[in-house]
Amino acid sequence: MTHANEVILSREIHAKPVASDFAVQPVSLADINDGEVLVRIIYLSLDPYVGSALRGRHMTPQPQPGDVVPGYGLGQVIASKADGFAVGDYVAGETGWRDHAIVPALAMRKVDPTAAPLSTQIGATGMPGLTAYASMNHLAAVQPGDHVLVSSAAGPVGGTCGQIARILGATNVVGIAGSDEKCALVRDEYGFDACINYKNADWKEQLAAVLPQGINVYHDNVGGELLDTALLNLADYGRVVLCGLASQYHADERPAGPNPGIFIVKRAKVMGLVVYDFLDEQQDVTAKIGEWIAEGKLHFVEDRVTGLDQAPVLFEKLMLGENIGKAIVAVAAESV
Amino acid sequence: MTHANEVILSREIHAKPVASDFAVQPVSLADINDGEVLVRIIYLSLDPYVGSALRGRHMTPQPQPGDVVPGYGLGQVIASKADGFAVGDYVAGETGWRDHAIVPALAMRKVDPTAAPLSTQIGATGMPGLTAYASMNHLAAVQPGDHVLVSSAAGPVGGTCGQIARILGATNVVGIAGSDEKCALVRDEYGFDACINYKNADWKEQLAAVLPQGINVYHDNVGGELLDTALLNLADYGRVVLCGLASQYHADERPAGPNPGIFIVKRAKVMGLVVYDFLDEQQDVTAKIGEWIAEGKLHFVEDRVTGLDQAPVLFEKLMLGENIGKAIVAVAAESV
Repeated sequence: MTHANEVILSREIHAKPVASDFAVQPVSLADINDGEVLVRIIYLSLDPYVGSALRGRHMTPQPQPGDVVPGYGLGQVIASKADGFAVGDYVAGETGWRDHAIVPALAMRKVDPTAAPLSTQIGATGMPGLTAYASMNHLAAVQPGDHVLVSSAAGPVGGTCGQIARILGATNVVGIAGSDEKCALVRDEYGFDACINYKNADWKEQLAAVLPQGINVYHDNVGGELLDTALLNLADYGRVVLCGLASQYHADERPAGPNPGIFIVKRAKVMGLVVYDFLDEQQDVTAKIGEWIAEGKLHFVEDRVTGLDQAPVLFEKLMLGENIGKAIVAVAAESV
Repeated sequence: MTHANEVILSREIHAKPVASDFAVQPVSLADINDGEVLVRIIYLSLDPYVGSALRGRHMTPQPQPGDVVPGYGLGQVIASKADGFAVGDYVAGETGWRDHAIVPALAMRKVDPTAAPLSTQIGATGMPGLTAYASMNHLAAVQPGDHVLVSSAAGPVGGTCGQIARILGATNVVGIAGSDEKCALVRDEYGFDACINYKNADWKEQLAAVLPQGINVYHDNVGGELLDTALLNLADYGRVVLCGLASQYHADERPAGPNPGIFIVKRAKVMGLVVYDFLDEQQDVTAKIGEWIAEGKLHFVEDRVTGLDQAPVLFEKLMLGENIGKAIVAVAAESV
């Protein structure tokens, strides 16, 4: 194996990325050094935060033209110079958009292919699932009787959040999503009690109508008007998990937030969530959600393309909010 | 006893109230009805929130010209038609700015004059003390090692917060106040480690310098730029108690708040506090803080005037932030 392919940025990104901002190019693979593994990538995860990272708005420096697009991948080790990593092991981590990646083994986590369907380990049972579990179980501590609202409910974090809330005993689980098609998925596949399309003119009235007793728990992936509206409908002592800010990933300015008075009047408890804090639980949570999937208690939906060269098109769709379910690129077969 | 005095609004309030907005007038006392008590008022509490209530910005309707100014008083029952309330009992509650008040007994709480110095039972051991205790002990759960920041630190809530934080074992207790004189009180009387005058041009640098490890706990009485600055200096996993919004009580518009991104990045835990939720603990907390005062562990400072007719002048001073310590009107002697 000496040749591979990667997706690079063809220009500097100053607006919402589109497919033509990317180019696929062949590369020669270098030899691997001590501590490294060569990974045959099977699945790539496409994630909204990468859109803001490409514009220099994430925790990392802005990628430049010619740089490989950052991204999370899952694959199989096909060569190893790292203790504890053998050929055939499944691993996941930051690989970039490639079909083969040479990476420091310590930057990868091992994946148990029997714990859950392999592709879900970058989705509903992977980091998005861990995010949802940390939010609903650890931070919000959802209990029987809770009325729960989740934004970006069709996505892998939001959809898993609502289903975990249900498993934890929530009385009423409501989603917000950006199209009627997404809302149908949220209700029919994920089993939420209701889903509001925030692009409808009367969505705020619809939301209040399906949460007449107020919101006990809100998982926020969006910020902006969705957060403001959730706070207005928050029940006293409501818990709010702030997890994502999709509304401002591509805004030109960082908008202000809600006046703190609403937090006081509602006696709200607001918690910021960064999934990296929970990585040492990933293996356990993958197994737990994997069991729920096996038992039919939790469902996942993928928007999947096949082939590394299809990544830019699906990413543009993700940026436009037109994907339905977890955006995933099947780069190669699960086993060879 | 048939004649008394009260302070009324002489005009509708549309800006920060001044002394000439108020007038003292004599009144004839009505007979008391079943369930009521006649209270000889000893101390009146002057509180910042009344300034916004007079402008119709509190939870209650806006007082009109001729209405008695709302306010919290402490006094002694001199006539009773209420079971369980005897002549001689000390009580506190919403009385308005009066020297005698006829009130429903159920709206008053009984005060044990031996639990703590009487005047403190509308200050450091009263509702402000309860606010501080609920914030530091229940919501923020201050522990040894914590670095604690408190705004409005010269006031009865803020000053008591910092001292309770110290008693709970905080490593470093820092205040913010609006003058060098207030800061001297915060350091010298309340024993804070440092106090920053936010009217100094370089106060943000000063604040960062005295909290080099970041803020573990912030008690916010102010909002606005003080909250923004505290959040920037928050340590990861910092706890923020939102309790007051002094910066906007007299603003023409409700300003926006901080972008939620700061809460996520810091993994902040933000909690709204309304003291009314903790009223059933008032008696215990009064006794506890009273003990700390008796033991010399906790200090209180009053800005006191004598005579009901002095209330408007002290209230104007309070509105301008020029009072030093708890603003209190000594209306009558503690015992007759």
